Amino acid sequence: MLIKCILLLCVFQVTLGRYEPNWESIDSRPLPAWFDESKVGILIHWGVFSVPSILSEWFWYQWETKTPLLVDFMKNNYRQDWTYPDFANQLTAEFFDAEEWASLLNISGAKYVVMVGKHHEGFTMWPSNYSWNWNAMDVGPKRDLIGEVGAAIRSKTKLHFGIYHSLFEWFNPLFERDRSNAFKTQDFIAAKTMPELYELVNKYKPDIVWSDGSHAADDWYWNATTFLSWLYNDSPVKDTVVVNDRWGINVNCIHGGFLNCGDRFNPKVLQKRKWENVMTLDKYSAGYRRNAKLEDYFTMIELLTEVAQTVSCGGNILINIGITKEGTVVPIYQDILTKLGKWLTVNGEGIYSSKPWTTQNDTISNYVWYTSKVINNEPYVYAIMLEWPKNNTLVLGAPKTSSTTVVSMLGYTGGNFSWKPNPAGGIQIMLPSMNVNEIPCNDVWVIKMQGVD
Amino acid sequence: MLIKCILLLCVFQVTLGRYEPNWESIDSRPLPAWFDESKVGILIHWGVFSVPSILSEWFWYQWETKTPLLVDFMKNNYRQDWTYPDFANQLTAEFFDAEEWASLLNISGAKYVVMVGKHHEGFTMWPSNYSWNWNAMDVGPKRDLIGEVGAAIRSKTKLHFGIYHSLFEWFNPLFERDRSNAFKTQDFIAAKTMPELYELVNKYKPDIVWSDGSHAADDWYWNATTFLSWLYNDSPVKDTVVVNDRWGINVNCIHGGFLNCGDRFNPKVLQKRKWENVMTLDKYSAGYRRNAKLEDYFTMIELLTEVAQTVSCGGNILINIGITKEGTVVPIYQDILTKLGKWLTVNGEGIYSSKPWTTQNDTISNYVWYTSKVINNEPYVYAIMLEWPKNNTLVLGAPKTSSTTVVSMLGYTGGNFSWKPNPAGGIQIMLPSMNVNEIPCNDVWVIKMQGVD
Amino acid sequence: MLIKCILLLCVFQVTLGRYEPNWESIDSRPLPAWFDESKVGILIHWGVFSVPSILSEWFWYQWETKTPLLVDFMKNNYRQDWTYPDFANQLTAEFFDAEEWASLLNISGAKYVVMVGKHHEGFTMWPSNYSWNWNAMDVGPKRDLIGEVGAAIRSKTKLHFGIYHSLFEWFNPLFERDRSNAFKTQDFIAAKTMPELYELVNKYKPDIVWSDGSHAADDWYWNATTFLSWLYNDSPVKDTVVVNDRWGINVNCIHGGFLNCGDRFNPKVLQKRKWENVMTLDKYSAGYRRNAKLEDYFTMIELLTEVAQTVSCGGNILINIGITKEGTVVPIYQDILTKLGKWLTVNGEGIYSSKPWTTQNDTISNYVWYTSKVINNEPYVYAIMLEWPKNNTLVLGAPKTSSTTVVSMLGYTGGNFSWKPNPAGGIQIMLPSMNVNEIPCNDVWVIKMQGVD
Amino acid sequence: MLIKCILLLCVFQVTLGRYEPNWESIDSRPLPAWFDESKVGILIHWGVFSVPSILSEWFWYQWETKTPLLVDFMKNNYRQDWTYPDFANQLTAEFFDAEEWASLLNISGAKYVVMVGKHHEGFTMWPSNYSWNWNAMDVGPKRDLIGEVGAAIRSKTKLHFGIYHSLFEWFNPLFERDRSNAFKTQDFIAAKTMPELYELVNKYKPDIVWSDGSHAADDWYWNATTFLSWLYNDSPVKDTVVVNDRWGINVNCIHGGFLNCGDRFNPKVLQKRKWENVMTLDKYSAGYRRNAKLEDYFTMIELLTEVAQTVSCGGNILINIGITKEGTVVPIYQDILTKLGKWLTVNGEGIYSSKPWTTQNDTISNYVWYTSKVINNEPYVYAIMLEWPKNNTLVLGAPKTSSTTVVSMLGYTGGNFSWKPNPAGGIQIMLPSMNVNEIPCNDVWVIKMQGVD
Repeated sequence: MLIKCILLLCVFQVTLGRYEPNWESIDSRPLPAWFDESKVGILIHWGVFSVPSILSEWFWYQWETKTPLLVDFMKNNYRQDWTYPDFANQLTAEFFDAEEWASLLNISGAKYVVMVGKHHEGFTMWPSNYSWNWNAMDVGPKRDLIGEVGAAIRSKTKLHFGIYHSLFEWFNPLFERDRSNAFKTQDFIAAKTMPELYELVNKYKPDIVWSDGSHAADDWYWNATTFLSWLYNDSPVKDTVVVNDRWGINVNCIHGGFLNCGDRFNPKVLQKRKWENVMTLDKYSAGYRRNAKLEDYFTMIELLTEVAQTVSCGGNILINIGITKEGTVVPIYQDILTKLGKWLTVNGEGIYSSKPWTTQNDTISNYVWYTSKVINNEPYVYAIMLEWPKNNTLVLGAPKTSSTTVVSMLGYTGGNFSWKPNPAGGIQIMLPSMNVNEIPCNDVWVIKMQGVD
Repeated sequence: MLIKCILLLCVFQVTLGRYEPNWESIDSRPLPAWFDESKVGILIHWGVFSVPSILSEWFWYQWETKTPLLVDFMKNNYRQDWTYPDFANQLTAEFFDAEEWASLLNISGAKYVVMVGKHHEGFTMWPSNYSWNWNAMDVGPKRDLIGEVGAAIRSKTKLHFGIYHSLFEWFNPLFERDRSNAFKTQDFIAAKTMPELYELVNKYKPDIVWSDGSHAADDWYWNATTFLSWLYNDSPVKDTVVVNDRWGINVNCIHGGFLNCGDRFNPKVLQKRKWENVMTLDKYSAGYRRNAKLEDYFTMIELLTEVAQTVSCGGNILINIGITKEGTVVPIYQDILTKLGKWLTVNGEGIYSSKPWTTQNDTISNYVWYTSKVINNEPYVYAIMLEWPKNNTLVLGAPKTSSTTVVSMLGYTGGNFSWKPNPAGGIQIMLPSMNVNEIPCNDVWVIKMQGVD
Repeated sequence: MLIKCILLLCVFQVTLGRYEPNWESIDSRPLPAWFDESKVGILIHWGVFSVPSILSEWFWYQWETKTPLLVDFMKNNYRQDWTYPDFANQLTAEFFDAEEWASLLNISGAKYVVMVGKHHEGFTMWPSNYSWNWNAMDVGPKRDLIGEVGAAIRSKTKLHFGIYHSLFEWFNPLFERDRSNAFKTQDFIAAKTMPELYELVNKYKPDIVWSDGSHAADDWYWNATTFLSWLYNDSPVKDTVVVNDRWGINVNCIHGGFLNCGDRFNPKVLQKRKWENVMTLDKYSAGYRRNAKLEDYFTMIELLTEVAQTVSCGGNILINIGITKEGTVVPIYQDILTKLGKWLTVNGEGIYSSKPWTTQNDTISNYVWYTSKVINNEPYVYAIMLEWPKNNTLVLGAPKTSSTTVVSMLGYTGGNFSWKPNPAGGIQIMLPSMNVNEIPCNDVWVIKMQGVD
Repeated sequence: MLIKCILLLCVFQVTLGRYEPNWESIDSRPLPAWFDESKVGILIHWGVFSVPSILSEWFWYQWETKTPLLVDFMKNNYRQDWTYPDFANQLTAEFFDAEEWASLLNISGAKYVVMVGKHHEGFTMWPSNYSWNWNAMDVGPKRDLIGEVGAAIRSKTKLHFGIYHSLFEWFNPLFERDRSNAFKTQDFIAAKTMPELYELVNKYKPDIVWSDGSHAADDWYWNATTFLSWLYNDSPVKDTVVVNDRWGINVNCIHGGFLNCGDRFNPKVLQKRKWENVMTLDKYSAGYRRNAKLEDYFTMIELLTEVAQTVSCGGNILINIGITKEGTVVPIYQDILTKLGKWLTVNGEGIYSSKPWTTQNDTISNYVWYTSKVINNEPYVYAIMLEWPKNNTLVLGAPKTSSTTVVSMLGYTGGNFSWKPNPAGGIQIMLPSMNVNEIPCNDVWVIKMQGVD
């Protein structure tokens, strides 16, 4: 828009500061700073899929498409004519306590939360006017789950609160008809998607509108730019809201607020635009699985590796947990989040509000990833070690040392480390043999360097 | 419209034969003859209300408005946060057999059937595109109940098949919002009522669109005349369909196809327009009640009294039965319908295709109601006796005898009856003392008279 | 025993009045008079089988033995590993009202009630100490159903109250083991049958111990005579209690209080001992069937035919009804029982306390069955007409007329009937042509004759 | 008995090797060696209590005694007349896989397993003949859970398999009657406890009969010595079986095979007889709780502290886990057991088949506990350090050094440690500063000493 404007018209537009319903204009909006500074978010999957709680949150789709595991599961455990909507009654949420969630999320060190408001199943976790008898107030929990979580997050923590919303719904008959009409009709958009999105934003004022399910059609079918221009111009969250890029199969990874691209997007090289790595602690599912095994979950090393790689390359990491039908975060997730929080308490200096450094992944020690930060006008470089160097000597190829170079480890109170220039370039850092009690953490340590280029 | 047309304009209209969306035009359409000739129809109430199956089909509303009986029932029998939609899963219909229904309905002597397609609860008994997860295919029966009943009625009987449809829905949030907007918005109409009605008519081609639930608003809110002009002009049933008068609080009992006025409307005097007495065999409920008692059902005498009064005064009678959640017509209803059928087999000559006579209710014997019919150009008068005359002599005040007067009883094979003019006017008929085996039926007998005025 | 006693020994026995645990002694006890005088009883089937409520009260057995109807029913409607005990939870009894039952049973004209206390499923309808978690107090109704019905019958009516008890249980593992031991062990008897029977009698003081399920073994396995001698000698109901004959495969139809022989035993000839025709109003099931059809129930003519035949030949009739899982007597049963009561109000004089006459079934008119009674020292003969004679003339072969012969009809107030001796023996009775209002009842009429042999 | 025997009588007894039904004789049986050598066992709680899965396995009792948490839970989540037996239907066990359990138990390093066969609720986890319709084959899982677990343990691992059995049942009416008779009757023992125990032993041949629930009465009521003499003399496991001490309120902690005394018995001083510390990983419940939080579970430090203290003082530790109604071991338990197994892989040398040393808890460093073992005729002492010494110097007061003293750490491959005698007695051990990768484990390390007294 700005490019095309001329003379008075241009002045007029700048004065009003309004975004137009096209990607050029939408993309021109600066991303609110809080998002990049946050680095770590938690995604929460909860829905009717939490009742069967097997395979993944795609249960309904996988069952309808005859995935043998699910066909057998249903045959063995339910009466013959059981349907997916029948599960909603059992989404009991009897142990759901939004303030407990808020406390745990706070402990995790994450700076924002995104909660599934509506997944592809179409069930709204708030009492939507447009999803009668297929929402969390009419059946199942009989509670406004989005409302409760949002209120707890905001009253008990400083985390930002976002909402996940699926544009498409697997089996909504209006969507199916639009699709069979090659998306020349937009009945589903008019009756469900758009009114729901406006309702969500007006009612819950989310800091993130985290869109999903756009892959079935192009952006124009979804009314994407129309909605976004309203969101940016006139919504109650116009100044603070952030959105992602899942607004049409043709715009994913191209347009929007920040880029998610695919699930588990972790390019391991620096990206031009702000991006987010959305990944799940259960390697096989975002929804909680009752039969998940210990080995299905990320270990701390695996998780911290993702964090290091993602932040180094300019991304945020959005870490997913699944909720039980009772409304609990099971202890294994509590354990991981608590450990993550402990790690960030020690090492957060190298993560939060950091910027990518000139190099992301060290040229000699490939288990080291960099971030950087300016503190009191002094630039620092952080080298995140995914492993402990075998002979206690860390050789890095990227940093150029200087006479003022100082090296230490976050959380280590035993003083600075000896170092010397590496003959082939870079630096050799001599890690001290630490008493067991002095080691800052069990896995993944962060070297802090001052006076390096 | 036709009244106002003149000359060429009028010719133009007749050529097109189209109805306009106003009552004058809608009302101008002649009622298809089959409806008046039928006289007796059966109304079938089935829905989610058949699951709790207590008090009446207004269960949801009565519960929400704290009717003590229902508050206690729910407290005693369901978990605390049970909601009405939770019942849908239990509408199991495991014994539902549409052909069995068709057979029974045929035996009853009724000439048309009206089945509840959607009651005020909003649950559609067919797989509507506009009631996702709140219809009989998505939850509960997992069957197209309207489709199955319609097909069975049409393939196994000659009965006409109509569908009951409630315009309003007690708790649909879109309706509630329209109402709170003083009906200045029509979101509910646009999203649900209208698309559903078109879907119903196009898909099931009903002989009757039996509208209900219009009392909450005026006809214009419901888009009544727009829909009806389409129904009469362009729908697949435009030549045969019949509608009632429940299309707006301001038009009920005034406009439409035939007049229902209120429930159980039985004026006992001749009406100017074709009307229908819609009544229920269970005196307290249209929906099946699991705890109904024998005395709650109409006796044969009570039912035949309604039939006689209604037909005498130009009405049709629409007799309601309720269906269990299993999909059965319970034996007590089978018994009543079977007995009605036997009675009509004997006495139907005085009912079907009859016309009101000059008098409806006899001036001397007030337990006698009249109908009339022309057979082979010969006029007959039928006197329906609700009681047997105490001394075997029936004295009627209305008929004027002649030399050609002949009197008999439908179903009696022992010959014509003696009669003589009644001194004070009318006729005295001497009923013979019959052998028990010769009596045509246990209750309510029909005297047939030829040559009376 | 009395037969064999001689001299002092005999006096000794009479003095003690005790019955010994052998059939000779047990059979020597005179049947309390109330039982023969009662003539008509109602049997009530209610149990866990009332939950599936299909096929019959033998559901469990029929399912286990792969009856296709039930295999399909379970496959279609329940999850794969559903078991019969799982049904108990759904025996909800939410509409059960013992006083309503008592009122209906009273209206029916029956003089005694027998309620299933425990059927072959082993579920006790009272809180037995010997059937933990498999009784109506621990699961399902959570009520003492036997206690409530017994109390209501006794406080609201004059009917006698009996309890049905099955000696065997289809699938009790202790019984199965005894059986596999060729009944050489009695673990089941010791742990369940005997303690239960004593508990039942001591706690509920039944007027009838109506035994069933004895066909699996001989009387000695069941401890039959031991129990009965206690029942007759020392139980709280020793003076009034009546038992039947189902106490062993070898004694059925031979020993006991009165003889049931097989189900629906209706020999149509006079029996030497007091007997009872136990039959069901649903021709196919004693338990309530949710999918029973009108034609499955006895018509009044069929029922009154059974009554007439049974009482004529010295039997009592025990008419079974089935109860729903909700605890209701469905209207079709209410209808039949109410009509039976009306018939007995008119015609009970020829039934209650009657004695068989010299002839049971008339030699000329085979639709006529006789009873007799002495009133004020005057003997009367009652001819129960199952049909109305075609030409209004009833020709009977059995009665020998005299000069004092008087003939009338119960319930007919128009006076005595003309009669004349039948040329070939017997009597010709001229029935008057009655006004419809004078006919005492719709079906089955009773001619009362005085002064005939 | 052996003490009292003299001469020939003594020979006679030894020849027959039979135990008499009194404690002197029962206690005289040597404990099979495998039990003491095993040191670590896993207790598995699974039952109907796993369905509500809240508060603890004492749910039923706590509910009946009006624990407010449970009264509210039931009020909020179940219909009013729900009973505990109603839960059994939901013990679905759909994800239960005995071989997976066996694999996990094997990994944990435990040498025996004890599974709840019947808890105080009386529900048998095997198809008992004496608990009809209240066992895992008739309702709920419809599987022989004891049989499946036993078979998997035996075919897939070398672990010993024991069964937990509660003598009493909270609400069994026969027990309640015996109790109200001041235990002068033993109807419950005759009908349930004894037949069940014999059935269990004969059918599943357990290596341990782990008795519980004896506190309600003395040993004679429970027929304890009678059963045990059979178990030791004639049962199929007479040579290998081990029992505990819960056989009567008067014998607990006094008689039996090994002593459990109370739950969580951990005396921290050497005991004269073999004992077992039965404790739960969930600090508040043996049964799985759906709403347990991370902090409710033992940390590894807490668990290893229990292990060290228990084994040092001559005990075995029996570590309890709870199973979900689905039949899974939740990941948090998998995590703890896997970590325990890893620790035992490194440190098991100091645990399995160890003997208490002369000192149990060090006199200077109270975070150190000792065990000892002779390997190839050479005695070793193991010092289990619950903490890492602050200055890398471990000062122990109990060991007396010698010229041949050698000190090392289990799992440390960097060679022996320097040491010197402690001036005030004992030893000073200089722990090397280890490279992070060389530390044998994160928590709790074992020092191995040779040549110390």
